[in-house]
Amino acid sequence: MNTVEIINKKKYGEVLSYEEIGYIVNGYVNDTIPDYQVASWLMAVYFQGLNSDETSALTDLMVKSGETIDLSFLDTTVVDKHSTGGVGDKVSLVVAPIIASLDIPFAKMSGRGLGHTGGTVDKLESIQGFHTELPLDKFKEQVKDLGISLVGQSGNLVPADKKIYALRDVTGTVDSTPLIASSIMSKKIASGADAIVLDIKVGNGAFMKTEEEAKELAETMVAIGKKLNRETVAVLTNMDQPLGAEVGNGNEVLEAVKLLRDQEYNQDLYDISVEIAAQMVFLAGKATTEEQARKLVKEVIENGEAYEKFVTFIEAQDGDMSSIHEIKAKHTMEVKADKAGYVASVETQQMGEAAMLLGAGRKTKDDQIDHQAGISFHVKLGNKVQAGDTLATIHTNIEDNNAVIQKIKDAFTFSDNPVEVKPSIIGIIQ
Amino acid sequence: MNTVEIINKKKYGEVLSYEEIGYIVNGYVNDTIPDYQVASWLMAVYFQGLNSDETSALTDLMVKSGETIDLSFLDTTVVDKHSTGGVGDKVSLVVAPIIASLDIPFAKMSGRGLGHTGGTVDKLESIQGFHTELPLDKFKEQVKDLGISLVGQSGNLVPADKKIYALRDVTGTVDSTPLIASSIMSKKIASGADAIVLDIKVGNGAFMKTEEEAKELAETMVAIGKKLNRETVAVLTNMDQPLGAEVGNGNEVLEAVKLLRDQEYNQDLYDISVEIAAQMVFLAGKATTEEQARKLVKEVIENGEAYEKFVTFIEAQDGDMSSIHEIKAKHTMEVKADKAGYVASVETQQMGEAAMLLGAGRKTKDDQIDHQAGISFHVKLGNKVQAGDTLATIHTNIEDNNAVIQKIKDAFTFSDNPVEVKPSIIGIIQ
Repeated sequence: MNTVEIINKKKYGEVLSYEEIGYIVNGYVNDTIPDYQVASWLMAVYFQGLNSDETSALTDLMVKSGETIDLSFLDTTVVDKHSTGGVGDKVSLVVAPIIASLDIPFAKMSGRGLGHTGGTVDKLESIQGFHTELPLDKFKEQVKDLGISLVGQSGNLVPADKKIYALRDVTGTVDSTPLIASSIMSKKIASGADAIVLDIKVGNGAFMKTEEEAKELAETMVAIGKKLNRETVAVLTNMDQPLGAEVGNGNEVLEAVKLLRDQEYNQDLYDISVEIAAQMVFLAGKATTEEQARKLVKEVIENGEAYEKFVTFIEAQDGDMSSIHEIKAKHTMEVKADKAGYVASVETQQMGEAAMLLGAGRKTKDDQIDHQAGISFHVKLGNKVQAGDTLATIHTNIEDNNAVIQKIKDAFTFSDNPVEVKPSIIGIIQ
Repeated sequence: MNTVEIINKKKYGEVLSYEEIGYIVNGYVNDTIPDYQVASWLMAVYFQGLNSDETSALTDLMVKSGETIDLSFLDTTVVDKHSTGGVGDKVSLVVAPIIASLDIPFAKMSGRGLGHTGGTVDKLESIQGFHTELPLDKFKEQVKDLGISLVGQSGNLVPADKKIYALRDVTGTVDSTPLIASSIMSKKIASGADAIVLDIKVGNGAFMKTEEEAKELAETMVAIGKKLNRETVAVLTNMDQPLGAEVGNGNEVLEAVKLLRDQEYNQDLYDISVEIAAQMVFLAGKATTEEQARKLVKEVIENGEAYEKFVTFIEAQDGDMSSIHEIKAKHTMEVKADKAGYVASVETQQMGEAAMLLGAGRKTKDDQIDHQAGISFHVKLGNKVQAGDTLATIHTNIEDNNAVIQKIKDAFTFSDNPVEVKPSIIGIIQ
């Protein structure tokens, strides 16, 4: 085989074999194929796409490029979840204890946040003492004993994806559906998942701005799951406004606690968390219908078992529950409405960026996060507000924040007439 | 400016500014932009193309990336020619002395051959003593004194093209019309040409297999010439069979000599040489019509002035005219027709490869050329042959040549009925 021939084949729109894709992937990982050849191949893939066989092959080859986590000792279907990333997305914090309290192991390796989206690991680290870096055997042991563990990604999982992703990032080849799909699925499979529930965010705060794009990505991932024997369900969820009421870290953990402990929540967060959890319960074989799965999920929220499991989980990883409280930053300021109207749109990505600028997120990988910074939203799409009503409260330790306040204000638009709001669950693809 | 943004812009089909293209080209030459980013940009260019402004900008920027040769001391329009490469293409050898004998300076830097095509410098080196590596001042002096010099490419001309071409070669981005066009034109312009005549070969022995592709390339180059103030004419010529009768090095030089000295020639070589020379004469302003230019060209062939100039040129570069003779290799073998018929097609690229395998060409850049190896063709397209007629004679110092003989035999097809042959000059684009 010959690298230039493989590049040309893809360039001319031909289908590559498993062996040809393997030649590129393995050659890149083993440093026998230079990055400039992989870069031009990736750009050819951007233009010509990969069909379902090619995408599954790429995923499988990336999984096989490194270590994989073997959770077969759990003797049960291991279901994982993945979100494509949004603003205020604390669904994993809510779902994890629900799943575990229903005797389904929740063994998740999660990412950190970058840019306008947050990461679950960052959020958990707002809890004093909480460890997100457990050795693999400790992680497995905790899942076996308590049914739940959530840690940061570590080890040599999917080195091909790491290397290819780093290259895509600097060669304009990030926004390719088969490349995105194989990147996500390879990480889930390498982490030991037997079944996968995907939360595909759609809207102005998500990477997928349109339902069409989101559907394409969802279908591509579900097809990979099918080919690689990992049952996969994709839930398309609305990201046209921040999810729930809080964007940040400490405040998002508290929001999750309030849902589980006090049954106080925004409806969108509740609906999405229930649906994602129910799909996981169903895939785990703990319910015979999706409806029954939803019922089970709601029960463990209501009877406090999910919250109990949450406490067990946090304390098992040395977290101090009493450190979860209203965030206290040096500056607390209210963003008020200038005029009356119905909330017609929220520029969600701008809200994510605003939270980042307040200290709650990272612009670059090396930035430090301020766990006490964030934004609390007091209105949702469709709500009627009067002039002077508080739209949001900002929490920050940064002195100069006028521009951010303005950014948040500008991110709202209002209408004189009532506004129709999209449902939180846009669709399910399986 | 930001490299990834420029890559994305091209990827999405937007038009790049002169500054943006310069950012990439200069960044690559100065090693501030890595090859993997240029590789993905090149692949995006392959798919999205470059418009006429972008292609001219790329050409201009490549010219400016290095030294240029100043021939303004000649105080006249300097016309250069370029061929896109074919099999048996000795047109430069014929045209150079014609032009010079009409008092138009011929100052050409020429290339070496690779793969199935030969290079003028290699052919000239079959002449004993002939130097193709002259210092720049010697080259200029000879052009001033004798009106003619032909040397190998040297110096730091168009380093951007050298670097980009090497990258294209290994990233599947060679066959892009704007990239090919800017590469050729930048070299011509950097070599000091005020006006350019392009011999665009079309057919199964050329890089451009179809008239459509050839026309696109021709139009792209003529447009570059227009924008950069170099009058440019493209002549589309037939490459569906080897040009003339000889393919090799020493034998091609002898064929050129026979045309100039004895007026013995194949019609296709004569017609194309006259047309290319006439276009050069016309662009140099030495004739008021193309028809008059053709007449002048034919005159200097007939009256021997072109041949006299050829002798002067060869001797000025220390070549021994007496070393130009029928080539003498260890093995001379005839390829005979198995049956009677009209020559219907010749797989010309295979013929070029056969000549290479006999020792007349290079498979890789470091291969040595055997100047006494080659193929003499005794039939042309449309000729009627009888079983047992000699189609071609091979000259080689290689022992095992049965496979090559078979390759040559297989490259001919015959028809029972007379065959229509395309004209040698397919079209002129200006």
